[in-house]
Amino acid sequence: MLAEIISLGAELMTGAAVDTNSAWLSDALARCGIPVSRHTTVGDDREAITAAIAEASSRADLVILTGGLGPTADDLTRPALADALAVPLVTDAESLRQIEDFFRALARPMPAGNRIQAHLPRDSTPLPNHWGTAPGIQARLGRADIFCLPGVPREMRAMFAQYIEPHLREHAPPAGLVTRVLRTFGAGESHLAEQIEDLMARDRNPAVGTTASEGVISVRIVARAASPAAAAQLADEDEAEIRKRLGPLVYGHENDTLASVVGALLTNRSRTVATAESCTGGLIAKLLTDIPGSSRYVLGGAVVYSNAQKTAMLNVPAALIDAHGAVSEPVAESLAVNCRAAFACDYALAATGIAGPGGGTAEKPVGLVYLALASPSQVTVRECRFSDRFDRAAIRDRAAKTALNMLRHELLAAPL
Amino acid sequence: MLAEIISLGAELMTGAAVDTNSAWLSDALARCGIPVSRHTTVGDDREAITAAIAEASSRADLVILTGGLGPTADDLTRPALADALAVPLVTDAESLRQIEDFFRALARPMPAGNRIQAHLPRDSTPLPNHWGTAPGIQARLGRADIFCLPGVPREMRAMFAQYIEPHLREHAPPAGLVTRVLRTFGAGESHLAEQIEDLMARDRNPAVGTTASEGVISVRIVARAASPAAAAQLADEDEAEIRKRLGPLVYGHENDTLASVVGALLTNRSRTVATAESCTGGLIAKLLTDIPGSSRYVLGGAVVYSNAQKTAMLNVPAALIDAHGAVSEPVAESLAVNCRAAFACDYALAATGIAGPGGGTAEKPVGLVYLALASPSQVTVRECRFSDRFDRAAIRDRAAKTALNMLRHELLAAPL
Repeated sequence: MLAEIISLGAELMTGAAVDTNSAWLSDALARCGIPVSRHTTVGDDREAITAAIAEASSRADLVILTGGLGPTADDLTRPALADALAVPLVTDAESLRQIEDFFRALARPMPAGNRIQAHLPRDSTPLPNHWGTAPGIQARLGRADIFCLPGVPREMRAMFAQYIEPHLREHAPPAGLVTRVLRTFGAGESHLAEQIEDLMARDRNPAVGTTASEGVISVRIVARAASPAAAAQLADEDEAEIRKRLGPLVYGHENDTLASVVGALLTNRSRTVATAESCTGGLIAKLLTDIPGSSRYVLGGAVVYSNAQKTAMLNVPAALIDAHGAVSEPVAESLAVNCRAAFACDYALAATGIAGPGGGTAEKPVGLVYLALASPSQVTVRECRFSDRFDRAAIRDRAAKTALNMLRHELLAAPL
Repeated sequence: MLAEIISLGAELMTGAAVDTNSAWLSDALARCGIPVSRHTTVGDDREAITAAIAEASSRADLVILTGGLGPTADDLTRPALADALAVPLVTDAESLRQIEDFFRALARPMPAGNRIQAHLPRDSTPLPNHWGTAPGIQARLGRADIFCLPGVPREMRAMFAQYIEPHLREHAPPAGLVTRVLRTFGAGESHLAEQIEDLMARDRNPAVGTTASEGVISVRIVARAASPAAAAQLADEDEAEIRKRLGPLVYGHENDTLASVVGALLTNRSRTVATAESCTGGLIAKLLTDIPGSSRYVLGGAVVYSNAQKTAMLNVPAALIDAHGAVSEPVAESLAVNCRAAFACDYALAATGIAGPGGGTAEKPVGLVYLALASPSQVTVRECRFSDRFDRAAIRDRAAKTALNMLRHELLAAPL
């Protein structure tokens, strides 16, 4: 069984809104074992919607449309679906009654425009909407079952659960498709791919692929088999092999972040952390405290953006800054060591660097960052030279993630 | 001139990632006066990509693909485009040299896999990528100019500006379409819409609409006319009227952020700022230092996540915390006042609250945040009660933005 998704809406075509419904539906279908082969987005154009429905129905067994079911003249899913089915629109009395009831429950008069929401292609099945006014529509065209849902995410999600999930349980083969995602940090995509090249061969099952996003390289495993259990076993085997080859480059899976993994390691070991940030300006602390419950292990942080504050808040000797510059290994080390003492914590992370776009010199270019980690037994300083293709946001992002990754490696080596 | 956008990537088809590139490109094209008629997303499937390219090229004058240009076997834009063009792939010597240079600059060996990034369909034009390894590709098929860009948003955006914008300036009709976006903060979308309801009437020119994203309500003005100058004049008139009606709710336009606007106001007035953050955990400092040149006015910040640190770093009396709780108006006020003194700055922003999901009580529920602004003349405290529909990230985001907005209003009222 193959699925396609069609999203409708002028705001998507002008870039005023991002299509999150297609991603949500793709994830929900993948969890039901149904692969999605195409997303199509078109605007409020009756012929374009009709064409998209006809094309998708010729390729897929399941077509889900979102949007275009509202009460205004630019809501064209109903007439476009009728055109694709080559049937007229007729008023569905039961749907009209439900829309009237919806407004009665709100004690508001029903605007005349809402009547068109009860117009459905002849012989299609209305899907009552308990979360809004627009009924959904189910129809069949060629090989495809078509479901039209509202574009409002909350209503769309509720109606997916009420109508499409039961349909899939009845009609789809048991889900022999399992997807896993492993998250890595610290090596480039091509370096990583070299170590699992054989697993990434085309037409292999499971299919293994990599994706890079903001310094995190994800490895995706998509296993297909006759049953869910058989697919899960295939995925398990690949996951074990990939973890073995990549070792501690893999920091987690699915929705793990470096900060959530560091948080779990700190929690397990009953350790605490604080931060001393210059160029990252609070970003490391922000990432650490993104995690619910981080108050158990984050004591606090110092954003020491000016040289004066490095001295005032964290006792970095002014002479040290004068001798080496604020962006230097000794200053990073001093920031981390003094931060650890000031906060009386187990670990302290420090960052000082040149995030740009200004402030670089030939000797200390934009992208030069010193990161330091003070731990109970030692202090480690790392010099990073981020590519001049990185902008300010990317330099700060990678510096903060590299700092968290230093702490992750330190914690992995520390006894529980 | 009509455009279509094709996004590639298995992570989009499994719902592991949301396609933000298509929205960004649609917006960028709209600003150039080019309407987008369709978005298509397909996975790492050579035939599907080839079909999508062929179909789009039969309907549109401009086709932009993103993704699938990486160094691994699942990056299939190059062979799929070659199939659609019915030409073989050949190695482009100049592209290969640039990829080798990229690794040389990083002082890293080039993995063998990166060689395939220099394979281009014969007779196509390589688009050098100064922001990463994958060159883009320009080709012509039927009526369509095809541009293939990397999927990494940073690289994609830079290459759009370098290659596609100049192409459009040369080939597109003069843009009798002008888009303006005003950014507002501090009022809900429906409240805002009520004040400009007449301008938002259907079929009016300019078209005026609102979009809400992460607390920022944007007002979009799309003006059409026979010439760029006439469209710009229509847009100017609407912009002036909307600014008049909404007053200081409008904080900026286009790419302005609250932090960039606050930064400009601080710079103009030669004033400095520091932060004292509990529940926002460094986010306010991070937002302020996102802005290039922020070292001119950001002195630093204290992330005082634990009660002990509120006392140790910022001298908040332990008795005050005992009496009122850490999440209270007096503690917020003390944080701001003491932060201003500790950093010897003109303005200090403080935040203390319950970001959840844990830690809430009946009296002090999740979403309760106290924000304080200490200025040369006074200290202002604001109690926020964010909706229980907000998660941790949304509460922290809105608290940080509300704090920046307090400072913005204070600065607007302060003499230059």
